[in-house]
Amino acid sequence: MTPYFKNHFGNASAIHYEGSLAKQAVEKARQETATALGLRSEEIIFTGSGTESNNLVILGLIKKLSRVDGVAYSDMEIITTKIEHPSIMNLLPVLEATGVKINYVAVDSVGLIDMKSFSGLLSPKTVLVTFAYANSEIGVVQPVGKIAREVRRYAKENNTKTYIHVDAAQAPLWLPCHLGQLGVDMMTLDAGKCHGPKGVGVLAFRGGIDLLPIMYGGGQENNLRPGTENVAGIVGAAKAVALAQAEYQRTADAVAEVRGYGLQLILEKVPGTILNGPKKEDRLPNNINISLPGYDTEYAIVYLDKHGIAASTKSACAGAGSGESIVVKTVTGDAARAQSTIRFSLGPKTTKTDFQKVVEILLKFQKLMQG
Amino acid sequence: MTPYFKNHFGNASAIHYEGSLAKQAVEKARQETATALGLRSEEIIFTGSGTESNNLVILGLIKKLSRVDGVAYSDMEIITTKIEHPSIMNLLPVLEATGVKINYVAVDSVGLIDMKSFSGLLSPKTVLVTFAYANSEIGVVQPVGKIAREVRRYAKENNTKTYIHVDAAQAPLWLPCHLGQLGVDMMTLDAGKCHGPKGVGVLAFRGGIDLLPIMYGGGQENNLRPGTENVAGIVGAAKAVALAQAEYQRTADAVAEVRGYGLQLILEKVPGTILNGPKKEDRLPNNINISLPGYDTEYAIVYLDKHGIAASTKSACAGAGSGESIVVKTVTGDAARAQSTIRFSLGPKTTKTDFQKVVEILLKFQKLMQG
Repeated sequence: MTPYFKNHFGNASAIHYEGSLAKQAVEKARQETATALGLRSEEIIFTGSGTESNNLVILGLIKKLSRVDGVAYSDMEIITTKIEHPSIMNLLPVLEATGVKINYVAVDSVGLIDMKSFSGLLSPKTVLVTFAYANSEIGVVQPVGKIAREVRRYAKENNTKTYIHVDAAQAPLWLPCHLGQLGVDMMTLDAGKCHGPKGVGVLAFRGGIDLLPIMYGGGQENNLRPGTENVAGIVGAAKAVALAQAEYQRTADAVAEVRGYGLQLILEKVPGTILNGPKKEDRLPNNINISLPGYDTEYAIVYLDKHGIAASTKSACAGAGSGESIVVKTVTGDAARAQSTIRFSLGPKTTKTDFQKVVEILLKFQKLMQG
Repeated sequence: MTPYFKNHFGNASAIHYEGSLAKQAVEKARQETATALGLRSEEIIFTGSGTESNNLVILGLIKKLSRVDGVAYSDMEIITTKIEHPSIMNLLPVLEATGVKINYVAVDSVGLIDMKSFSGLLSPKTVLVTFAYANSEIGVVQPVGKIAREVRRYAKENNTKTYIHVDAAQAPLWLPCHLGQLGVDMMTLDAGKCHGPKGVGVLAFRGGIDLLPIMYGGGQENNLRPGTENVAGIVGAAKAVALAQAEYQRTADAVAEVRGYGLQLILEKVPGTILNGPKKEDRLPNNINISLPGYDTEYAIVYLDKHGIAASTKSACAGAGSGESIVVKTVTGDAARAQSTIRFSLGPKTTKTDFQKVVEILLKFQKLMQG
């Protein structure tokens, strides 16, 4: 990214040499991102965040179906879950208000989409299925391939067209993100969530999918996202996605091993700990999410933090700290669990010793609370 | 910006130490930006670009007036010009389609807003006046204070409320941007247009102005702009705006002197040159925009570029190169002039010698075309 902060300041939409250098950098980054996702470069759009990509793909698709294809809002249905990121969860009611029907598929007690419930919701009106590839709070990894196949089967039998979008913001460091192999049409990524710069999102889509933009201005990003291209950010985002995908399998295995140890240790040693989300299978290798019912875990986070451990309660986008986790509440139906979550996100440098420390601190915290 | 790329990766909305470091950096940047603009920190929102700020302030205000205050679209009018940046020009028709009336104030032959035309357009329905503080193509600087006073006078006499928004993307390096002194309510800035990073916009607003967001997600940026905060970008944006405003008077005077020399030289030496926009007064000190009627100036740009001079035809956001300049067409009514524009943007390092070179190259170009 450095050359595009220090030397090359051109506007990628300008026609002079400095502009063309910037343009080349953006297009190289687009190709790099596309290759990592098994796509062609014209199937990649850069935005300002994962949140913006989610907004663009969903609002832009519905708008296009309405304005270009003439589909009435009341003839459109979307299938999603009740455990989505706020950028989906707070967006869909806006569409609901226009008459689009939002169908929430049931998830089981660890957050997995219930396939029977899912099949029952598919209808000729289903224009879009959208869900997180991996949940940002409890780490549950959805069976994307199975869901995609079910959508294609239904669409073929009923001669309908349903787009499949996954919010894969949590995925690139840990899971394969090849759209063709997953069988999805659109994918949201966020560079800042896979070791890249904050402030850059990716929207990937396979094949001739038309959207309408949600902001208005210049013709950048194939007329889908106006505004001067964030050259340095885009270069960094592409590198982050490409590196994440090149190394995910090795990293995932190593981190899963530490996670397995850490989770086991916490469950064994810290009284009252309950795991939220799946055990080993179907879970992001870097995610631990527990509840300590009866404890003020916002205070636990502060206490852990004081001892050098950065943890979270729920999604930072869902409001830092206070209140219950909607995700854990939905999955477990248990308010006490939803109000007492602690989430640990591992990185390649997290060690087993770190978890011994976590356990020590949590035990001290419990003692302090009981004293 | 470097520490926030190299060491401090925290999510500013997280509650742990790393998060709080990021949050502090963002809030310090907000205060720095606010101070530079004569505002309080809670009057600053960071976005992903100037384009996004323009979209947010206009769509967000109209939406708020409609949904919260219950004003019918058909009871809202906006005054603007026909020489705005594409992020305004392509946005307003979207509102027009909902029933909001867009009134285009006349501009004179150099692009200045006609005050008589302006006064005649003010009505009790006028909810918003929006225009560029300085035009991105022809550099005309509007009499913001005069316009603001006229709006206030009308509003007072008629007991109405009209918001004034200026797109000041081109301004910070050259003009004072103190909202109170200018008398405006809202201001758009773009960090990348004043030596800061691309991909960060500022939306500044004075006092209790309510907007509704145009994207949905987390509660970041006072519930107005969801998405993980671009910490490094925001830090850089604040520094760019603050530095620009601290130094603008000195820089402006120095650059204006070189510009005066360069413009004079081009007009004297290059046959057929016509200046677009105002002469010295009412013009950005770093802007020269000429027409060479009868010449293919897109080719002139390429020719200049080959000789080491980066120039433009119109706004990069208006599509690189091809087609006429809507701004010059509107101002002059002359298609030949609008199709043959060349824009030079000066920086503090541009020299008089550079302009001697420009003149040489343009003369060679003319000779080549005539040969």
